[in-house]
Amino acid sequence: MKLDKLKDFSEWYNTITKDAELCDLRYGIKGFVVFMPWAVLTMNRMYAMYEYAVESRGHVPALFPALIPESYLTRESEHVKGFVPEVFWATEAGGTKLEERYAMRPTSETAMYPMYALWIHGARDLPLKIYQRCQVWRHETKATKPFIRSREFHWIEAHDCFATREDAMKQVREDMEMAEEVIHGQFGVPFLFFKRPQWDKFAGAEDTYAADTLMPDGRALQLPSTHMLGQHFSKAFGIKYTDDKGKEEYVWQTCYGPCISRIYAAVIATHGDAKGLVFPIRLAPAQVVIVPILKEETKEKVMAACKEVVKAIGCCFMVKIDDSDRTPGFKFNEWEMKGVPIRIEIGMRDVESGSVVVVRRDTGEKLSVKMVELDAKLDEIAQSIDKNLRERADKWFADKLSSAEDMDELAKKLDLHGFVRVPFCTDAMDGEKCADMVKEKVQANMRGSLFSSDEKPSGKKCISCGTEAGIYLYAARQY
Amino acid sequence: MKLDKLKDFSEWYNTITKDAELCDLRYGIKGFVVFMPWAVLTMNRMYAMYEYAVESRGHVPALFPALIPESYLTRESEHVKGFVPEVFWATEAGGTKLEERYAMRPTSETAMYPMYALWIHGARDLPLKIYQRCQVWRHETKATKPFIRSREFHWIEAHDCFATREDAMKQVREDMEMAEEVIHGQFGVPFLFFKRPQWDKFAGAEDTYAADTLMPDGRALQLPSTHMLGQHFSKAFGIKYTDDKGKEEYVWQTCYGPCISRIYAAVIATHGDAKGLVFPIRLAPAQVVIVPILKEETKEKVMAACKEVVKAIGCCFMVKIDDSDRTPGFKFNEWEMKGVPIRIEIGMRDVESGSVVVVRRDTGEKLSVKMVELDAKLDEIAQSIDKNLRERADKWFADKLSSAEDMDELAKKLDLHGFVRVPFCTDAMDGEKCADMVKEKVQANMRGSLFSSDEKPSGKKCISCGTEAGIYLYAARQY
Repeated sequence: MKLDKLKDFSEWYNTITKDAELCDLRYGIKGFVVFMPWAVLTMNRMYAMYEYAVESRGHVPALFPALIPESYLTRESEHVKGFVPEVFWATEAGGTKLEERYAMRPTSETAMYPMYALWIHGARDLPLKIYQRCQVWRHETKATKPFIRSREFHWIEAHDCFATREDAMKQVREDMEMAEEVIHGQFGVPFLFFKRPQWDKFAGAEDTYAADTLMPDGRALQLPSTHMLGQHFSKAFGIKYTDDKGKEEYVWQTCYGPCISRIYAAVIATHGDAKGLVFPIRLAPAQVVIVPILKEETKEKVMAACKEVVKAIGCCFMVKIDDSDRTPGFKFNEWEMKGVPIRIEIGMRDVESGSVVVVRRDTGEKLSVKMVELDAKLDEIAQSIDKNLRERADKWFADKLSSAEDMDELAKKLDLHGFVRVPFCTDAMDGEKCADMVKEKVQANMRGSLFSSDEKPSGKKCISCGTEAGIYLYAARQY
Repeated sequence: MKLDKLKDFSEWYNTITKDAELCDLRYGIKGFVVFMPWAVLTMNRMYAMYEYAVESRGHVPALFPALIPESYLTRESEHVKGFVPEVFWATEAGGTKLEERYAMRPTSETAMYPMYALWIHGARDLPLKIYQRCQVWRHETKATKPFIRSREFHWIEAHDCFATREDAMKQVREDMEMAEEVIHGQFGVPFLFFKRPQWDKFAGAEDTYAADTLMPDGRALQLPSTHMLGQHFSKAFGIKYTDDKGKEEYVWQTCYGPCISRIYAAVIATHGDAKGLVFPIRLAPAQVVIVPILKEETKEKVMAACKEVVKAIGCCFMVKIDDSDRTPGFKFNEWEMKGVPIRIEIGMRDVESGSVVVVRRDTGEKLSVKMVELDAKLDEIAQSIDKNLRERADKWFADKLSSAEDMDELAKKLDLHGFVRVPFCTDAMDGEKCADMVKEKVQANMRGSLFSSDEKPSGKKCISCGTEAGIYLYAARQY
């Protein structure tokens, strides 16, 4: 491929997900995608790293049913409004109609919380921090795009209960810290945490905090969100504990949903280039590919050298020898397209000089390395690749932040940047009309206020209604 | 608890799965179970070990949709008959009726094979070895029992395509070898591989080979099965490749389904005792629990010693300090019930002598170990525990094999043993009537012929119809 992701991201994305065999869209149900091995190898690694982060912060895993009785699903009224319109319902089993409709979980609050009400008794049972790795289903009406939005997706969801609002708010911050550690630190994908306006929060939450990254076309993509549920659900489901003084109190809850399939899309979009996929070392399905340069008369010696290399580095890297009958040029293109971070070329000349040629996928840099130094050199290159990818992404991302003070300026800035900070009347429900106006005029959404900042507009006017601005919000076009 | 699993297994099993908080049966859909953290911690470890075994034998992971269009599900006629009667159907989404019914996958052949037909072209695409980790749903009409049989279960399924029948048969043997390595070698659960009689094979298969273990009550429980699918599905789904001579051929297929939730049940049943759960080191959610023997005046010193121990062994073992305010006796019982393999007790006397008390869960053996030797000693004990558990299980299992030559003898032997070998007319479809007779007379099922043996009855009569016996089959009562 030779497509510029910055010029036509959609074309680039559709081409690479097909050419690199990441998914197959020909499955017989609209919006349901087959995730192919080259994608799932990486997604499984991402799962392992995220699950480690979640467990090392005191969460334990559980598995709740995929089906939710309609009577559970409809117990919290806001939640119902948000999710019921897109639920898949199981209504028959074998030959007969079921007594009650069962929802295929669109998210698991209403499957888990009836059990929490049975499990939590006293302060000793708190905090309760449980997560599950699972898939969820939503009959999306928006256009689907593989990994970014489909009707079935793969995620982790953590659901926590606390004795106090302060403890719950601490969890919200811990959830953000995990996203920073894993998604930015390990996957190299930059993002910002926004507190969503009230009209755009999770159905049933008090407040929603969501990490937004930017696609190469400057449109925002929501990565994990963490929700302060307050006591909405604990009151609906009767999740109470008896405190020290023998008084019954409702618990405070949070939930957190890193969507692995969507974060995978962000990894592809953030690091990929005109030649195809580019993976950080940690996420590559294969980290090193060895391409032997074979001629009939020296074949045996070159292949022996390849196996020597595998022996030398196989303990620390996932290595693949491509000894198929295709040309070296074909193989170079193929493995570059597939995003393997390091290529090693070995021909007879290298064998004779006791060295190999090492090529970096991220920079294209090519260097000759002595066999005896290979192990150490590859370690160094691996670290350098991860660092370079993260820094490159951060630099691009930093340049995508801008600000505007009126609608015309906003329109112009949106075309050049991603997030544009604007003065706004309010992020309470009253502000929704103003947000609708922005959407209509410049096709952008209000993503919320920056969590890490408490900057306040003083003496500015709301870009939409012109009344005194009470808050800075960030506008962006979105997926 | 103080129940004898050999005397009343059902009571023992129901009590331990509840008391150790492995599952909760109070969820609002019949046959759907909540798998709780103490179970899922182990199940996740089992998944990791099984996935490693599968991947190291050349399988790659994929993720196929949970919903299967009715038109896919019904393409192979035998498969339809076997599975359609127990399928959950999604028929509505949001407010509207779907155009076609979608089956919640009862197993994934019919989701995967239409894609295989698109992916496989030439001999270069073979073998194709793909697995997925997922859950499946079946509206079982038999009585459910947590982990053993429920309407939702968690498994790995591998689906492979080959150019020849020989290659496929080699895969069947590799699948068996994996079961031996993981389930027997690592989990310590003994089993036998039977070739199922024709009337009891997987719907759509040519032959089914299944691993059967025995529960403490002597009833057989099916663990993984591997199926030689022949060309039944490849013909139904058009999975063809072009061979060297340019000729189109249908592929040969196998599938393999280790059900992690059920294997977990076998682990519990095999190793547990009157005090509760017993886990091999590899599978324990916590491997070592430290119980400090605290008195007010020495509390600080004892707690400091506990932390020293964690520092010394925390690199190699998953360690938990139980410093709750319950009594040591309560804690001993609790952690024994939960199956933690090693307990360390530390009191002031131990601190003074620079040693700790180590107690093995499997044997109850108690020994005093010098702090400086603790690390090495625990390694030794850990290995010894796994070995002891496996050997104990093997010994019990070996004693459960027996043989009989007529129906009366079979009835008697079934009460004392598990598997009883009997001469039988045939394992082809013609034999089903004889099998039905055995079921009626002695409530046992014909599990099949032993895969590892080609013993033939000579001059014997079928225990059911009395005609000349052509084969030895094994009878057992079953779950």
